[in-house]
Amino acid sequence: MTAYKLLLLPGDGIGPEVMAQVKTVIGALAETGLATFETETDLVGGSSIDAHGVPLTDAALARADAADAVLLGAVGGPKWSGVAYDIRPEAGLLRLRKDLGLFANLRPAICYPALADASALKRELVEGLDIMIVRELTGGVYFGEPKEITTLPDGTKRAVDTQVYTTGEIERIAHVAFDLARKRSGRVASAEKHNVMKSGVLWKEVVTQVHAEHYSDLALEHVLADNCAMQLVRRPKQYDVLVTDNLFGDVLSDVAAMLTGSLGMLPSASLGAVDDKGSRKALYEPVHGSAPDIAGQDLANPLAMIGSLAMALRYSFGLGEAADLLDGAITDALAAGARTKDIAGEGVNPLGTAGMGEAVVAAL
Amino acid sequence: MTAYKLLLLPGDGIGPEVMAQVKTVIGALAETGLATFETETDLVGGSSIDAHGVPLTDAALARADAADAVLLGAVGGPKWSGVAYDIRPEAGLLRLRKDLGLFANLRPAICYPALADASALKRELVEGLDIMIVRELTGGVYFGEPKEITTLPDGTKRAVDTQVYTTGEIERIAHVAFDLARKRSGRVASAEKHNVMKSGVLWKEVVTQVHAEHYSDLALEHVLADNCAMQLVRRPKQYDVLVTDNLFGDVLSDVAAMLTGSLGMLPSASLGAVDDKGSRKALYEPVHGSAPDIAGQDLANPLAMIGSLAMALRYSFGLGEAADLLDGAITDALAAGARTKDIAGEGVNPLGTAGMGEAVVAAL
Ligand SMILES: CC(C)[C@H](C(=O)O)[C@@H](O)C(=O)O
Ligand SMILES: CC(C)[C@H](C(=O)O)[C@@H](O)C(=O)O
Repeated sequence: MTAYKLLLLPGDGIGPEVMAQVKTVIGALAETGLATFETETDLVGGSSIDAHGVPLTDAALARADAADAVLLGAVGGPKWSGVAYDIRPEAGLLRLRKDLGLFANLRPAICYPALADASALKRELVEGLDIMIVRELTGGVYFGEPKEITTLPDGTKRAVDTQVYTTGEIERIAHVAFDLARKRSGRVASAEKHNVMKSGVLWKEVVTQVHAEHYSDLALEHVLADNCAMQLVRRPKQYDVLVTDNLFGDVLSDVAAMLTGSLGMLPSASLGAVDDKGSRKALYEPVHGSAPDIAGQDLANPLAMIGSLAMALRYSFGLGEAADLLDGAITDALAAGARTKDIAGEGVNPLGTAGMGEAVVAAL
Repeated sequence: MTAYKLLLLPGDGIGPEVMAQVKTVIGALAETGLATFETETDLVGGSSIDAHGVPLTDAALARADAADAVLLGAVGGPKWSGVAYDIRPEAGLLRLRKDLGLFANLRPAICYPALADASALKRELVEGLDIMIVRELTGGVYFGEPKEITTLPDGTKRAVDTQVYTTGEIERIAHVAFDLARKRSGRVASAEKHNVMKSGVLWKEVVTQVHAEHYSDLALEHVLADNCAMQLVRRPKQYDVLVTDNLFGDVLSDVAAMLTGSLGMLPSASLGAVDDKGSRKALYEPVHGSAPDIAGQDLANPLAMIGSLAMALRYSFGLGEAADLLDGAITDALAAGARTKDIAGEGVNPLGTAGMGEAVVAAL
C-alpha cells in the first residue's frame, strides 16, 4: 500500500493543538488499513518567524512542494503585530498559496443537523444548509502590483493595492466551480461588482462564456457581491456552488461559515492545476483562524482540522472510502453528544480538544 | 422662514414611486410650518440614459451642486445591462458622489422593535440593534486609476482596478466616525485587511493616530473585514460605530442592513466637508436598490426614502424637531400596524407604496 507523503504545518495559536489531533487520527486510520501516511512537520507563520526570522523558509516551501499534500493549522496573532509587512505571519501562508499555484479554494459551508441551533439564524433558514464556496486564491488584490505605501512631498502617505484578473485566471476557477456543480445540484452563482470594477466586468464576461461553451446544461446566476452578502443572511439555502474572487471570497466565505453555527468545524481545500500525471498540489486548512486568546488551553475545536484531513483523503488521494469513514466518525461523534466549548450550548459539559479527538477516533 | 432648495432625483425602478411619497410628506411638513422646501426634479441613472444618452447630465450635476441637499431614489436595472461601462446607470450616482465630494456615507442599521421578527437572525440577537456604519465614499477601488481592461498579445484580456487611499482621506473619515461615536456610545470599530492590503496597513495606522491625538477618551477596536462580516452575523450588537473603506463598506453595510429585517426601511446620508460658511454638500438615499422586479406595482416600501428626508432635515438643515417628528411618524405608523409587503409577515394584509406614505402623513 502506498504511503502518501503529508507535510504538517501546525503554525500558530491553536494550530499545534488541533494538528495534534490529526496525528492521532492518522494513527487510527493506519490501523484500519485504509490509509497510511508518511508525515513530516515544519514551521509556518509566527512560529517560523520566531525560529528563523521569516514566516516560511525556502526549505519548508520545498518540502511542501515535494509532499503529496500539505495540512496547515493556522497563522497569525497579536504577538507578531509589530513585525514588518513582508515577513508577517500571513505572508508565509500567502507564499505557499502563490508559489504552489493553489488557485482554487474550496470552502464547504455545511450546517450539521446536531448544531443548527448554534447558528445566529433561525433554524429553518440553516437546517440542511450545504453551500460550496469556490474562491479564487492566487490572484486579485492579494497579489497584484503595485502594492505599496509611498510618502508624498508633504510628508503624508499614499497606499496602493492593485486588483488584477486575466481571462485565463477566471476561466480556470470557473471550470472548477462548474465541474463541482455538475456533481451537486447543477447550480452556480457567480459574485462580483461589475457595476463598479473592471475586474468584475471581465469576471462576469468570462464566467458567462465558459458557461455557454461548456456547461450550458447547468444553471448560472450572476449576483453583485454586496447583494450576495445580504442574500447569504436572508435566505442562504438559495445557493449551492458560489464562485467568486479572492477578496470577496474571503468575506463571503466567512459569512457563509458563520451562518452554519459550526465555524470551528469547517475545513477547506486549496488546489492547484492537474498536471500531466493527473496529480495536483494541495493544501488543506480549517476556515477558522489561530484564535490566540484560547490557545494552549485545550479549548479549541479540532473538527475543522480533522475534516481538513478528510478533504485531503478525498481530493488528493482518491480515498473516498476512508474520507466517508472519517466524515461519518465526525457526524457520529456529534450525534453521540460530543461537544467542544464553542458548540456546547448551555448546560452541556464540554470536551477539550484532545477529548474531541478521542471521540472521533472512538467513532472510527 | 427659509425655503430650503431640495433636488429630487428619483432615478430608476422603484425610485420614482418611493420619491412620490416623499413629495406627499414634504407637502404635509409645509402645512405643519416646521419645514418648507423648494423642490426641483431631474433625471439620474437609466432614466437619464433613456432621455439624454448619459446617466447624469452636466446640467443635473450643476443643479445638485446648487441645491441645499439632494434626495436620490435608486439607479440601475437589467434594462441597461448592455450599456457601455462609462455610461451605465451607476456611473451617474458615482459621479454625483465624487464630484460633490461626498466622502462620508452614514448608514444606520436600526432594528425597529415592531419588525424584529422579520430578521433572519434570532430575535434576541437583533432586538434593539442600532449600528452606524461610516463608509468612505469617494476613494478606494471605486475611483483609483488605472481602472481598465486591456487585450493581451494572445487575444485574452487583463482587467485592473486600483485601490488608493491617502492619509488625508483616511483622517477625514476617521474624524466623522469618532465625532459620531462621541454623541453615541463612545465606541468605534475600524475594519480593514491590513494583513493582506497596504491600504489596510495605512488605514489602521492613520485611524490609530487620529484616535490617539484627538479621541483617546473613546474606545477604538480594529477588526479584519472578513472577521467583521462574521461578527456582524454572530453578535451584531457588539458594534456601535463601524468605520471602513468604500468597498468593505459596500458589503458590510448591506450585511448590517439585512440583519435588521428592515432593509426597505433604512436611509443613508452621503456628506461632504463642512465649508467656510458651515454648510456641506449632501445626498440622501435609501440603502435598498432599484428593485426593477417590483417597480410600478405599488409594492415598494417608501419608508427608507421618507427616512432619507428625515436624515436631510437633521444633517443638512439642523431641523432636529422636524426630523424627530418625521421619524416618530414612521415609528407610529409601524406600531399602528402599517406594513408594506416586504415586512408584512404571514396573514397580514399589506398596504401599497402610496398607502404607506399616507399612513406616515396621517401619523405626522
Ligand atoms: C490569514 C489571511 C491572510 C487569510 C486571507 O485573507 O486569505 C484568511 O483570512 C483566509 O481566509 O484564509
Ligand atoms: C449602485 C452601486 C454603485 C452602489 C455602490 O456600490 O456603492 C450601491 O451598491 C451602494 O451601496 O450604494
